[in-house]
Amino acid sequence: MDNNTYVVIMAGGIGSRFWPFSRTNYPKQFHDVLGTGESMLQMTAKRFQDICPPENVFVVTNRDYEHLVKEQLPHLSKNQILLEPIGRNTAPCIAYASYKIAQLNPQAQLVVTPSDHVVLKQEVFTHVIKEAVQAASQDDVLITLGITPSRPDTGYGYIQYISDATQNIKKVKTFTEKPNLELARMFVDSGEFVWNSGIFIWSAKSILRAFHQYLPEIAEIFDEGANFLNTPQEQNFITRAYSHCRNVSIDYGIMEKVDNVYVLLADIGWSDLGTWNSLYTINEKDQNGNVVDGEVILYDTKDCIIKTPKERLVVLQGLEDYIVAEYDNVLMICKKSEEQKVKEFMADAKSKKGPEYI
Amino acid sequence: MDNNTYVVIMAGGIGSRFWPFSRTNYPKQFHDVLGTGESMLQMTAKRFQDICPPENVFVVTNRDYEHLVKEQLPHLSKNQILLEPIGRNTAPCIAYASYKIAQLNPQAQLVVTPSDHVVLKQEVFTHVIKEAVQAASQDDVLITLGITPSRPDTGYGYIQYISDATQNIKKVKTFTEKPNLELARMFVDSGEFVWNSGIFIWSAKSILRAFHQYLPEIAEIFDEGANFLNTPQEQNFITRAYSHCRNVSIDYGIMEKVDNVYVLLADIGWSDLGTWNSLYTINEKDQNGNVVDGEVILYDTKDCIIKTPKERLVVLQGLEDYIVAEYDNVLMICKKSEEQKVKEFMADAKSKKGPEYI
Repeated sequence: MDNNTYVVIMAGGIGSRFWPFSRTNYPKQFHDVLGTGESMLQMTAKRFQDICPPENVFVVTNRDYEHLVKEQLPHLSKNQILLEPIGRNTAPCIAYASYKIAQLNPQAQLVVTPSDHVVLKQEVFTHVIKEAVQAASQDDVLITLGITPSRPDTGYGYIQYISDATQNIKKVKTFTEKPNLELARMFVDSGEFVWNSGIFIWSAKSILRAFHQYLPEIAEIFDEGANFLNTPQEQNFITRAYSHCRNVSIDYGIMEKVDNVYVLLADIGWSDLGTWNSLYTINEKDQNGNVVDGEVILYDTKDCIIKTPKERLVVLQGLEDYIVAEYDNVLMICKKSEEQKVKEFMADAKSKKGPEYI
Repeated sequence: MDNNTYVVIMAGGIGSRFWPFSRTNYPKQFHDVLGTGESMLQMTAKRFQDICPPENVFVVTNRDYEHLVKEQLPHLSKNQILLEPIGRNTAPCIAYASYKIAQLNPQAQLVVTPSDHVVLKQEVFTHVIKEAVQAASQDDVLITLGITPSRPDTGYGYIQYISDATQNIKKVKTFTEKPNLELARMFVDSGEFVWNSGIFIWSAKSILRAFHQYLPEIAEIFDEGANFLNTPQEQNFITRAYSHCRNVSIDYGIMEKVDNVYVLLADIGWSDLGTWNSLYTINEKDQNGNVVDGEVILYDTKDCIIKTPKERLVVLQGLEDYIVAEYDNVLMICKKSEEQKVKEFMADAKSKKGPEYI
């Protein structure tokens, strides 16, 4: 446990590939997706309990979700919840948190993590993060956790690294965002690629240096207003700052451009749980290959994922390889193989039936 | 319009093949199944408005449904609603109504009808019923309406009649309850069979005579207590009477045995709407063959019947030939070809999840 280590949990997303479960007014990270009794956000916060003191955990979220964060993580102080007026992707979010924490502790090491991923191997995770923090405290490096791919998934970013058997932390050669299936297969077969987990480790100094060099317009905005951070003026400043920040991801804006990026291969039982299929993959199946969360009676039904409200009895007959999902007055039934259409469903639901359905 | 004509609407059934839409506490006949704004019971009552005065319409139902009948047919007096303490099939139900009406008017002609069937050709229906009533008032005959079969349906009873081109009303040769598919095909091909609509026309005298001859134990019960009918003691008497009546249908108990049974061929646009497939058949389809009643967005979906609550958005992808039905906290998805399993689903829902689901 290191007092200089800080965790930034990014909890402002919508999780739209998980519709109708993930919704504008109650996104995925606030749901108990795995049925463990804890939300993804709560599981994420707990994941760092042996890594840094609880007062060093910061959550960045949209202002609309402030009440949800307070409800789910009641031990956080007001200063530990960073409220974005609008989503501007990961770069402004990370700039905000990094500037704020750097002002509190210029020697800070930051671990930046999504709020809606799952990590099954807690002990390995703690060990790996500590190793990365240690490295980031010694050198001017930006580290990302890399996951050895188990399949040619086209929904992930891939990182090619330079093999070096003497080092756990490998130098990154290239980043590739969501490749097509053919490319993904080549990546997996080559053995030189890992999935980009979106979990980053760096010192506050290193990431601020990178912002100045690669996203100078964002650095300028936060340099000018840095004195407002951790003061009663912070919210007003952030409202102004975000109105000037463009939408840009940390991967595109910095990671793919800098030359001091490293990847730490981490076998941590990771999934981004970004899609219905990933939820299907990670869950236990019944004897017919069904993943069931709900009051369900099944006949001639196999390889389905069913997630419906406890209070509703669901009787299914003759379904194979389907998603059956109901949440907050939306029922969706869709072939598992067609789940990429969920975003189209959402858009149509909004335009044809109304914004309350997304 | 004839003051001696009376209508008996049998409204005590459960409609279990229509689960989860038809439910113990709200059976099919009380639903607006066709989405016309009127329940099946209301449509049935209205069907007779040119046949007899409204005070001659009697509804027999279970005591549990008294409030539903009063709500849906508020013009009925208390004496027009006959309450059964327990369902004992059609013979006791018809005996009760026939004895009661015969006491009010010994010259009564009765039309007995289910409460949950559909008749699309109202004018033909009125004409046919009047013709049958006329015949029943002149001769000691028991008449049933026969429907020319459009398909070898195994869910209906079949009536074989003796061809006689000089008579509209044909003498019945045999009754056959729900034949297997092979037999049903032979029946349809022969041209000598019609479906038994379950709509009966006879004089009170004729049906009481038939009860005395073929179901004497039921006749005896009602003969003994006839003086209680249409008095404040009626309910008490009926409770005792039903505890002694065995469960027997009018078809099995009388129609299949007597030799003065006739069938009137009636092209009235009839369906018993007994099953999801019959509801599918009778309804208008969209361009992909779907019957939709609900807030629905469809993708790659054809030949389905979808009946879901208005307040829920239902998004379906990749379904063909399915029933998707939700009512009162039960969602059922089932291949149309497997709808005979609905009774099994109901039984399992009750035993595994609780009586509130049936």
